[in-house]
Amino acid sequence: ETSGGYWYASGEFSMSEHAGTHMDAPIHFARDQASVDKIPLDRLLGPAVVVDARKQAAENRDYRLTREDLRQWEAAYGRVPAGSLLFMLTGWGASWTDQERYFGSSAPTDPATLHFPAFSREAVEFLVVERAIRGIGIDTASVDYGPSRDFPVHQLLNGAGLYALENVAQLDQVPPTGATIIALPLKIRGGSGGPVRIIALLP
Amino acid sequence: ETSGGYWYASGEFSMSEHAGTHMDAPIHFARDQASVDKIPLDRLLGPAVVVDARKQAAENRDYRLTREDLRQWEAAYGRVPAGSLLFMLTGWGASWTDQERYFGSSAPTDPATLHFPAFSREAVEFLVVERAIRGIGIDTASVDYGPSRDFPVHQLLNGAGLYALENVAQLDQVPPTGATIIALPLKIRGGSGGPVRIIALLP
Repeated sequence: ETSGGYWYASGEFSMSEHAGTHMDAPIHFARDQASVDKIPLDRLLGPAVVVDARKQAAENRDYRLTREDLRQWEAAYGRVPAGSLLFMLTGWGASWTDQERYFGSSAPTDPATLHFPAFSREAVEFLVVERAIRGIGIDTASVDYGPSRDFPVHQLLNGAGLYALENVAQLDQVPPTGATIIALPLKIRGGSGGPVRIIALLP
Repeated sequence: ETSGGYWYASGEFSMSEHAGTHMDAPIHFARDQASVDKIPLDRLLGPAVVVDARKQAAENRDYRLTREDLRQWEAAYGRVPAGSLLFMLTGWGASWTDQERYFGSSAPTDPATLHFPAFSREAVEFLVVERAIRGIGIDTASVDYGPSRDFPVHQLLNGAGLYALENVAQLDQVPPTGATIIALPLKIRGGSGGPVRIIALLP
């Protein structure tokens, strides 16, 4: 547009609350929990924990992170700190532009066809109850694996008032421990989730 | 919505690229400059400088921050650091919910009626050329003052490849110097601007 001799650009946009790199707010699967605009800032910052499950996921595209995987991570790097943001690195992020591969389906709009790795309920229950994490994140489309029909990880996590970060990019650039994560979602009033910018401050 | 025995919420949203607390990307007034999705992360972080102009603005709602105001700030706090994000604190943020007061108009959709304080072109030129700042921000609707018809601050700033942050909240909580700002806008492809979450890490 031009006006009075100068040029300028302006516009509007619209999108889903659950597209691209986004946050599932606690209210997403738990009606009494916080919407995306009501999460206190101090819950959006925390120590990063990155659990590398690329090997397991490469062998089984429906892999779910286990309690044993977490035990091995702690044996190598120490106890998961309270208040952590815990990320599962599957390697799927590298396939983001190949949606058939990313969703494990040639018809990703049909949920019965999906195949991709994510968390198990038992692993997340341990993290919530025994490690008091702030939230979890993953470089796939969902913290529940592709074949899930009842989304137990979402139900458990959101029911506990915690959030999930999905379609997270460049997780392979973050060390297993020592970084600090800042995850700032768009404050959509009453939103069930929304796009989020996530940065890691490296040690 | 409910499905298979569990409850969940989801939704879409739409908004202007220039509503609420938002960034004017360099392309907003300069067609060859970066859109909001193309600003490198290291340009979204920097030392905070807050110039308190509440007294001047209270006396003149069309006040524009002067070169002399910056001279006095530097006399008190030292040279504005290179790479700073420089904020003008007008006190207008406290009137956000009173739109007639915030815009200085009973008809804010008519740009000929607006009255609120902002930057002068000479002050911003000094900051860009002599101090190599990263961007500017303000607790009013625009970095050009209400009566402006040709938006010289936008033209100068965006022309230099820099961005503006508008409708910034809680600026009175940030000290004149010593804080670090992180300003993460929504990455709207090709966007002229967009909603932004801004946090200050206090010293």
